[in-house]
Amino acid sequence: MISQSVADVMTPTVRTVTPEATAGDVARVFAANDIGSVVVVAPETDCMVGIVTQLDVMRQVAGDADVTAVPVGSFMSAPVHTVSSAACIHAAATRMKEHSVQRLPVVDDGELVGILTTTNLAHYVPRLRREIRRRRTATAP
Amino acid sequence: MISQSVADVMTPTVRTVTPEATAGDVARVFAANDIGSVVVVAPETDCMVGIVTQLDVMRQVAGDADVTAVPVGSFMSAPVHTVSSAACIHAAATRMKEHSVQRLPVVDDGELVGILTTTNLAHYVPRLRREIRRRRTATAP
Repeated sequence: MISQSVADVMTPTVRTVTPEATAGDVARVFAANDIGSVVVVAPETDCMVGIVTQLDVMRQVAGDADVTAVPVGSFMSAPVHTVSSAACIHAAATRMKEHSVQRLPVVDDGELVGILTTTNLAHYVPRLRREIRRRRTATAP
Repeated sequence: MISQSVADVMTPTVRTVTPEATAGDVARVFAANDIGSVVVVAPETDCMVGIVTQLDVMRQVAGDADVTAVPVGSFMSAPVHTVSSAACIHAAATRMKEHSVQRLPVVDDGELVGILTTTNLAHYVPRLRREIRRRRTATAP
């Protein structure tokens, strides 16, 4: 049976930083973990307040910002588009396309439980195609 | 009928730089065009010699490199994994996963004709799922 929910394909580990982290700090998190985004959380409440992607940091580099000083709180994207782990993958992919984003933090009952990325969806394509082939074979005369 | 070749989903526009471009130069290309990679071509031959992603630039930032001076030729990925525009999407997605890359330059007869990214594949997921649903409905008793 083919899996159909975000929970089945998301990355369950999400890196977080506080708004005071610098562009250089998150560049090191990206480089060390081979990831494309970090979720920004308020240190007092642990609530999600934004998201920072590689492209956001790239814009700081392109603008000649001092990456050792500029805090992510000043250039993060907020509010954040999210999805629940029970959402169907098709709906999540459509949501990504509509909002022109490449990752959706996965939130259940207010708790950050993972992140869904375009890479997760790309890795899902071969499984979907195998399913189409299986159905085609099963229903062939 | 669902489209099945790389040509149907790839991005036909590919930005290129020479190996002498700096990390700062490509950061500006990324930021201005909202893209995640550039293909590196030799100025004499126009041949593809490497690829540079946002993560590659991020590693330079993380390592405190002088982004206004470090040339992409010194940190680009080479050789480059490529795919032909006639390849089936499933095979291309599998190739991306196997090589842990998020983009494949599309090359036909030695000519760079596009780039296939995880974002292209993510946008393809809703189309694939609609196809599964269509087949399910068509074959229901």
